[in-house]
Amino acid sequence: MSKILIDPQTLIYPMPAVLVGANVDDKPNFMAVAWCGIANGEPPMISVAIRHRRYTNRGIRQNMTFSVNVPSTDMARETDYCGIVSGSKANKAEVCRFRVFYGKLDNAPLIEQCPVNLGCKVVHVLDLGSHSLFVGRIEETHITESCLTDGKPDVNKIKPLIYTTEPARQYQAFGEVIAPAFSIGKELKAGE
Amino acid sequence: MSKILIDPQTLIYPMPAVLVGANVDDKPNFMAVAWCGIANGEPPMISVAIRHRRYTNRGIRQNMTFSVNVPSTDMARETDYCGIVSGSKANKAEVCRFRVFYGKLDNAPLIEQCPVNLGCKVVHVLDLGSHSLFVGRIEETHITESCLTDGKPDVNKIKPLIYTTEPARQYQAFGEVIAPAFSIGKELKAGE
Repeated sequence: MSKILIDPQTLIYPMPAVLVGANVDDKPNFMAVAWCGIANGEPPMISVAIRHRRYTNRGIRQNMTFSVNVPSTDMARETDYCGIVSGSKANKAEVCRFRVFYGKLDNAPLIEQCPVNLGCKVVHVLDLGSHSLFVGRIEETHITESCLTDGKPDVNKIKPLIYTTEPARQYQAFGEVIAPAFSIGKELKAGE
Repeated sequence: MSKILIDPQTLIYPMPAVLVGANVDDKPNFMAVAWCGIANGEPPMISVAIRHRRYTNRGIRQNMTFSVNVPSTDMARETDYCGIVSGSKANKAEVCRFRVFYGKLDNAPLIEQCPVNLGCKVVHVLDLGSHSLFVGRIEETHITESCLTDGKPDVNKIKPLIYTTEPARQYQAFGEVIAPAFSIGKELKAGE
């Protein structure tokens, strides 16, 4: 067999690049996160993994809320900056000129320039090895009006980023459509 | 402000498309999952959200192991099929002609045709609303040798899939490289 074993620390798995927001000591802060995923359907929940010592980790625990802001491809520079610098050393929202707003959750800061914004209330915290896994219930979803087509969100206008690690750490755009989901697989049903 | 509120049930967030494997009643079964994410760094852990009643959910609980297999763009049909059909009704591995192998974990089935295979041991189970969130420690990572470049995993050869829901449910490829990570953001440091 043509398989080889590699170090499990090498995470080769499709990962989103998002900006997780929290108020830390009552001030909005954002960090770049690639380690998150949907955790539940009804009600909708999302998980984010954040290193224990990170400034954002402190803010999430202070308010038990956080936000997930989906940046578009034209925000790669700001996204990356928010992953490099700690909020303990710089006012990242100011440096990136983020227009911060609040929704229903009055302490989960949202970024107006990001096309999609989720406001989340923490429902579970798992303290794993190096990271805390925060599971948040999505209480509100905001979208920039110009990213809708016929009233529906449109990924071609949202233009999210994927974070790739191998062979190089970089941000990638979404690419070509390969196939319709819940559809192309039906071809195999004939062979059952 | 040009933001509008939409139903939080609309999950507009970059999602991977992977095949989660488990032995159910000692037989290998696979389902398509878009709701997963890295949960911890050291040791590496991954989370998968699976509806309580799903056949795969039963298998994971039987062995407390599961696998995450990353399909490439040429496996969209098989991936989709594994999301449409229940393992209680069809032998999906057989229909898809998956060559199943086992690694260190002798009850976490892996798919040879998928370029990347993670074998995971369950360390936490959160029973959320509609789904169980399984957090697994990645015990082993296999990669197809032809997906390496100079001995390193290469995303351009792995060709993972993203699952998109809006405006249509479809699978997309990874697209163009937007910027180098841990690098482009440095430009903003000057403005701090």
